[in-house]
Amino acid sequence: MYELGVVHSNIRRADSDLAARLGAFGAATVHEAMGRMGLMKPYMRPVYAGAQASGTAVTVLMHPGDNWMLHVVAEQIRPGDIVVAAVTAECTDGYFGDLLATSFKARGAQGLVIDAGVRDVSLLTAMKFPVWSKAISAKGTVKTTLGSVNIPVVCAGALVTPGDVIVADDDGVVVVPATLAQKTLDAAAAREANEAEKRAKLAAGALGLDMYNMREPLQKAGLKYID
Amino acid sequence: MYELGVVHSNIRRADSDLAARLGAFGAATVHEAMGRMGLMKPYMRPVYAGAQASGTAVTVLMHPGDNWMLHVVAEQIRPGDIVVAAVTAECTDGYFGDLLATSFKARGAQGLVIDAGVRDVSLLTAMKFPVWSKAISAKGTVKTTLGSVNIPVVCAGALVTPGDVIVADDDGVVVVPATLAQKTLDAAAAREANEAEKRAKLAAGALGLDMYNMREPLQKAGLKYID
Amino acid sequence: MYELGVVHSNIRRADSDLAARLGAFGAATVHEAMGRMGLMKPYMRPVYAGAQASGTAVTVLMHPGDNWMLHVVAEQIRPGDIVVAAVTAECTDGYFGDLLATSFKARGAQGLVIDAGVRDVSLLTAMKFPVWSKAISAKGTVKTTLGSVNIPVVCAGALVTPGDVIVADDDGVVVVPATLAQKTLDAAAAREANEAEKRAKLAAGALGLDMYNMREPLQKAGLKYID
Amino acid sequence: MYELGVVHSNIRRADSDLAARLGAFGAATVHEAMGRMGLMKPYMRPVYAGAQASGTAVTVLMHPGDNWMLHVVAEQIRPGDIVVAAVTAECTDGYFGDLLATSFKARGAQGLVIDAGVRDVSLLTAMKFPVWSKAISAKGTVKTTLGSVNIPVVCAGALVTPGDVIVADDDGVVVVPATLAQKTLDAAAAREANEAEKRAKLAAGALGLDMYNMREPLQKAGLKYID
Amino acid sequence: MYELGVVHSNIRRADSDLAARLGAFGAATVHEAMGRMGLMKPYMRPVYAGAQASGTAVTVLMHPGDNWMLHVVAEQIRPGDIVVAAVTAECTDGYFGDLLATSFKARGAQGLVIDAGVRDVSLLTAMKFPVWSKAISAKGTVKTTLGSVNIPVVCAGALVTPGDVIVADDDGVVVVPATLAQKTLDAAAAREANEAEKRAKLAAGALGLDMYNMREPLQKAGLKYID
Amino acid sequence: MYELGVVHSNIRRADSDLAARLGAFGAATVHEAMGRMGLMKPYMRPVYAGAQASGTAVTVLMHPGDNWMLHVVAEQIRPGDIVVAAVTAECTDGYFGDLLATSFKARGAQGLVIDAGVRDVSLLTAMKFPVWSKAISAKGTVKTTLGSVNIPVVCAGALVTPGDVIVADDDGVVVVPATLAQKTLDAAAAREANEAEKRAKLAAGALGLDMYNMREPLQKAGLKYID
Repeated sequence: MYELGVVHSNIRRADSDLAARLGAFGAATVHEAMGRMGLMKPYMRPVYAGAQASGTAVTVLMHPGDNWMLHVVAEQIRPGDIVVAAVTAECTDGYFGDLLATSFKARGAQGLVIDAGVRDVSLLTAMKFPVWSKAISAKGTVKTTLGSVNIPVVCAGALVTPGDVIVADDDGVVVVPATLAQKTLDAAAAREANEAEKRAKLAAGALGLDMYNMREPLQKAGLKYID
Repeated sequence: MYELGVVHSNIRRADSDLAARLGAFGAATVHEAMGRMGLMKPYMRPVYAGAQASGTAVTVLMHPGDNWMLHVVAEQIRPGDIVVAAVTAECTDGYFGDLLATSFKARGAQGLVIDAGVRDVSLLTAMKFPVWSKAISAKGTVKTTLGSVNIPVVCAGALVTPGDVIVADDDGVVVVPATLAQKTLDAAAAREANEAEKRAKLAAGALGLDMYNMREPLQKAGLKYID
Repeated sequence: MYELGVVHSNIRRADSDLAARLGAFGAATVHEAMGRMGLMKPYMRPVYAGAQASGTAVTVLMHPGDNWMLHVVAEQIRPGDIVVAAVTAECTDGYFGDLLATSFKARGAQGLVIDAGVRDVSLLTAMKFPVWSKAISAKGTVKTTLGSVNIPVVCAGALVTPGDVIVADDDGVVVVPATLAQKTLDAAAAREANEAEKRAKLAAGALGLDMYNMREPLQKAGLKYID
Repeated sequence: MYELGVVHSNIRRADSDLAARLGAFGAATVHEAMGRMGLMKPYMRPVYAGAQASGTAVTVLMHPGDNWMLHVVAEQIRPGDIVVAAVTAECTDGYFGDLLATSFKARGAQGLVIDAGVRDVSLLTAMKFPVWSKAISAKGTVKTTLGSVNIPVVCAGALVTPGDVIVADDDGVVVVPATLAQKTLDAAAAREANEAEKRAKLAAGALGLDMYNMREPLQKAGLKYID
Repeated sequence: MYELGVVHSNIRRADSDLAARLGAFGAATVHEAMGRMGLMKPYMRPVYAGAQASGTAVTVLMHPGDNWMLHVVAEQIRPGDIVVAAVTAECTDGYFGDLLATSFKARGAQGLVIDAGVRDVSLLTAMKFPVWSKAISAKGTVKTTLGSVNIPVVCAGALVTPGDVIVADDDGVVVVPATLAQKTLDAAAAREANEAEKRAKLAAGALGLDMYNMREPLQKAGLKYID
Repeated sequence: MYELGVVHSNIRRADSDLAARLGAFGAATVHEAMGRMGLMKPYMRPVYAGAQASGTAVTVLMHPGDNWMLHVVAEQIRPGDIVVAAVTAECTDGYFGDLLATSFKARGAQGLVIDAGVRDVSLLTAMKFPVWSKAISAKGTVKTTLGSVNIPVVCAGALVTPGDVIVADDDGVVVVPATLAQKTLDAAAAREANEAEKRAKLAAGALGLDMYNMREPLQKAGLKYID
């Protein structure tokens, strides 16, 4: 970390198939499967409802009000990547708009996660290029200062190492370290195994109290019913 | 208040028909009809645009990061109820998702109002199960600590007594004490009585200044026109 | 400024055609064309996605919790205007709803920009009357205190002089002083001139690094690639 | 609740001696003794460091920007009371300054807890009149609208019934229902019983791990030490 | 407004004696005397308790993260001035520290009001150089981009024209237009005229209810006492 | 990262002498010397004015509302360490009070940096045990869930690796990676070398414009003076 002015052009990405399969489970399930770790702060919101993406992280660190490095990271994108952009201080400026989105998409990016602002959100929505950001702002940026590409960054409170799996949807953004991707996938699959069955029972009026055998532990914990 | 570990299974609900009719007026009108009382803080937002619900409150109090009592409250839901969930401290965790929504819906719940976070919002939207919350977060919760069901709670700054009428829509969430439901309904009806007529006049270009006879009081208050 | 209780009924508006043409460029481009000045704070958000408006500003200053002057400003609206409403202190109350929207629309208003709350957002959405606000709240207001109409106001951090051009969309709200409208339009047009061409190149996989000749300045700034 | 325009001049206060003794334990200990209930939101801060107060609550409900009822509540203050002021919507105006503080103090008030703003904080500090508020603001208020005195109010997220015990210090503000005051005092006393002893041991270098016998439960929970 | 890259070296300042006398009344009284206008947002706080200043405004507009113009404004300071610094977008960076404070002080500045962050607050406190800011941050800034000096700026929601009187203390920051300074001073003096007398009465136990003859209007408004 | 339930008892600490010497420069200078990296978010504030500390980081990761691991980390403290505490989700609970402070101090801790709340702030102030936190809250925590000790954590937006140097004061909290400590110290020393001389010149009325030779670059950038 803390290297400024460097671009790592050769990173080890998590398996792209793993990334896609983790994505299918969604952020909430993957976050549970991780032991409730790796979630970005809930202020990170998709710019349009229903946005959904997963992929391997290419990272970029920028200074406030300066988006120069987004052009540098564009060249490092490979199909299946998600760009994760961090800023060295709080900033809500609009770092990213439809031209960069066009470029990122052409390079195969699955989306952008940025701890700052973006703009052209109507066009991003029309293009269906999914973006998670902390703000929306028409305010543009300059191209003056170097940052770095593909170094570990802290984005919205989560550490992201280049190549990690990112799973993002309406519920938020989760980071799965490459080394934990398979294990997390297995845990997610186990979690979901009989969810359809549970949903059917609950839809038929069954209670979680019975389905999960909670009555006894609740009673032991001292729960009293008053009529 | 302040009873922990109790479930009141027998509460007096406001008349369900009153609740439905209040709901038809919407939160803004009902809030006016209450004398501008009983509104939850405006940080409470629906998880999808156009959400709308009214019903009688069943309440639940939980500790931060622990949603155990949501399973307990599920059993207390009767058709026409809305669940109102409070937490003893600030928390944005995702207490509620699609499985609990399936269960609540099967029990006849009209919606959920929760002073914390929820998740699976794409599914909640697809199910059209209306939820008002303070946050959206993939972060799950544990099931360890007792809270209470159907005690008076403070939710997003408003006191909710079990059985109160809840009216919620895109404009926010209003609490109508059961004893004031009829009176509030009458006041709301009176307020709306000639609204269609007013709307037609305004649409035709009439000014509120004339329609509400404001020119004289404005002049008396000292308003000066400068050409 | 600071005149209370006055209505200026005769203001010099920017050319309405200029306003419309600036609107076509959108808030982000216009803000760039202004030299990145004149943007309201990013907490100003449209009440529905896709809202878009431009026009000449009629301004109104009100006290917290009091919307009386919105009826006064209604009379001053001419077709092509946008109402810009400021409040003398922080307030999230719902100053504006569907009746006032009906009136404003009938008078020819293109939209409302208000540094406070609004309500009836479902109806505003259905009417397609675009509103940018800081909050949504069912809480109504009284009609007791005088403010002023068509004086310079500070709205969401930006100075608005009556007659200025307002450009608002999903990216935010920009204020263009009447005297700078033509110059800003020219700058916006120049900015956009070859954007379609750029977009096509980027869509074909070209990199901004090459298109904007950034490789040399990046190298000079010291950027190092590590394989 | 929800009565507007009423003053209850005859309320049942908790025992004043209990209030004083609870105050001596401080907000943190009392909050623990209550089972971690009854705490106001942490945005409530004293206007000067080291502020400390306890007493019986006289309550007042006001509208935003209107402090008329503070003069009404002044008459209801008895020695040993703390005034708890709630507002029907978010407001940061300065409702209270040195003149009202002089009056409250003369009536025997121990302090003020207000879910809004105050001003004259230099004078309040010099007078050593303790105030907990959500904001500091020079902005004054009007005296136009009725609220109520000595009805149950929700202040900073906590329900306060007239006569409840309030304990406030640098750590926050806790509400103890009159009926729970004795029980809470006992629990607080038990909690503090051997604290001096514990402090001495810890100061001598003992570890909580040993003093509280945590090593075994930690090991059972699966904690692993890696050298 | 909106001129970038200009320094107005010749501005008309309000009378310095008026500024000093307004300062003696404090922000709360001056704000009342202005008709409750001209107050900066309450997020502007002094960096140390008890800070107090008044003077004539020299203004500076800067871009986020760039404090170059603070050196330019230093030269424009005359004894009795207060520097008012605005930024074109939200920024919490530390624009100002002890070296600039030393320079400003040497030039005769009475203080700094900045809608951004500052640093070296321990030294500022030791120097007793009063500063009101929106944040405290160790994060420094660059010196790259031009802004302007002595143009009208919007600072923390208030319009400041060069030469206006600024009154700042623990209660906040108020802007008095130069043309209103004398009138505001008179109003403030009238307001304070018999305040000492009132304070003495209240200290002796008199009630505002009687002193301000509120009992009758309260009764007319419908206030009911319940025993 | 992401190991739960582990304690690394053997970490490589930065040189303690380096930590002390970096501390003497203060957070603002060290942050500059780092190239403006490594600063925690500015919401981290000392619990008392004038707090100052530096040391080597021992880290702890906890779940919301659970401070069990603070007892575990206490045993890992060596003289000269600073405890850096992160939480897996937003939480303002009071994790730390005077008993733990007594213990930490006895173990030789220089202070605590915690991305959550603390309590007993009057006692912490009296003890002069420096703490930087995001909130102050009387709300206590449970001791139920495992976290980890001495793993890399993200605290208030900054990555902290065990053994890093922490420099904290009124201006904020900076993290210096152990490997960069010497280099940062050299840069800080160079920065401060002639600061006393500069301060003296500025105090004598010299302008930064001249002292830093800014007049020419400002002119080149296009700055115009208007008389």
